[in-house]
Amino acid sequence: MRGKLIGVGTGPGDPDLLTLKAVRAIESADVVAYFAKRGNPSNARAIAAAHFRPDQVEEALDYPVTTEIDRHANGYKDQIAGFYAEASERLAAHLDAGRSVAVLSEGDPLFYGSYMHLHVRLAPRYDTEVVAGITAMSGCWSAAGLPLVQGDDILTILPGTLDRADLTRRLSDTQGAVIMKLGRNLPKVRAALADAGRLEGAVYVERGTMTNGSAIALADKANDDAPYFSLVLVPGWSARP
Amino acid sequence: MRGKLIGVGTGPGDPDLLTLKAVRAIESADVVAYFAKRGNPSNARAIAAAHFRPDQVEEALDYPVTTEIDRHANGYKDQIAGFYAEASERLAAHLDAGRSVAVLSEGDPLFYGSYMHLHVRLAPRYDTEVVAGITAMSGCWSAAGLPLVQGDDILTILPGTLDRADLTRRLSDTQGAVIMKLGRNLPKVRAALADAGRLEGAVYVERGTMTNGSAIALADKANDDAPYFSLVLVPGWSARP
Repeated sequence: MRGKLIGVGTGPGDPDLLTLKAVRAIESADVVAYFAKRGNPSNARAIAAAHFRPDQVEEALDYPVTTEIDRHANGYKDQIAGFYAEASERLAAHLDAGRSVAVLSEGDPLFYGSYMHLHVRLAPRYDTEVVAGITAMSGCWSAAGLPLVQGDDILTILPGTLDRADLTRRLSDTQGAVIMKLGRNLPKVRAALADAGRLEGAVYVERGTMTNGSAIALADKANDDAPYFSLVLVPGWSARP
Repeated sequence: MRGKLIGVGTGPGDPDLLTLKAVRAIESADVVAYFAKRGNPSNARAIAAAHFRPDQVEEALDYPVTTEIDRHANGYKDQIAGFYAEASERLAAHLDAGRSVAVLSEGDPLFYGSYMHLHVRLAPRYDTEVVAGITAMSGCWSAAGLPLVQGDDILTILPGTLDRADLTRRLSDTQGAVIMKLGRNLPKVRAALADAGRLEGAVYVERGTMTNGSAIALADKANDDAPYFSLVLVPGWSARP
């Protein structure tokens, strides 16, 4: 009798944004697995740990790289593919032994989540369930109280890594937008929003669901500092009062 | 002392997809409000009712129209605007009397939600909190076990009401896509996906988080019947194994 794989969305950070289904999956699993950067505590574990049982087996899946290296380089790709393959086999050993494995995934498991790399390797071989989670973007617009899209609005979710002309073109051709992966891309994102006539209305959200989170008009943000867990939200036309 | 307005996301249908925060908000509110089509039970109420207290006041906000009329007609727009204004004032009376009001909203309150119409009217006047919910699309790709987008993928969320040429153009210019509002638009959506070379990989999901839900390759769907609560999901390139 082989164990079941369960991808569990933990939501964006606030432990109260776990679903009842996620809590039950965490409480009942034989093994709880989570990703972390080597040498750092796991964010997903911190969100869910209040629901762990003392006798549960924990599998920390530590990313092999801590320094900033070019993620388009072949060496990085090989290393990260090897890491996901090895992590999958560690979990497969538990599944083969009949143990259920809950993989914690920040946000929603199948929406830009690291869990996807395990899912594509293990779901063809094992009984699998995915428990949806609140996405970071949803946590952010809720914390900001910002109506995002309504009715027939188009919503476009963009990485800040796109070049300025491509960002501008896409921002000119959508009602609502969410821009992720800001970091050092924020000056370019700001310029593209201005080029597209969408800077007015754009909201910058930092640590959206944390107690020290903040949301301000991007036009009013005095600097271009943007940590990884920040987003720009552009409300659709019809979402504006 | 005025009461607090709380927009509470109930998620897509499965009561276990309520968040802990939503459950607490529902349990502690003085008044619970929800939308329904006149003469029909409220879906949002059905999802959340297990957490109601016997002494809670319920406010059913019944949409004034049951028959299919052209929602672009002025008569409809006036009627629906009047309805939202009147519903807001009913809730404002509770808030003025110091009662907290939880407005249940299927999916996520600020993402294509009816709650938004109350939020824009009441949030400027009352202390307001929004509790994020699992979106219908997230419930659908989780139920289907379908990795949607990864890494630098662009995700475009489209209403099926767009014309075929516009749909085709947008589907040709994105990695991942979600197409909502299918209904009678499904033949057109299918044609646009074929025109864009994206029919292969597209997945049709019906009643995603219900026990009788189903997910099939759209290319294998033999008819064009599509109820309101159905979606087409197009995985991004990098989300494919």
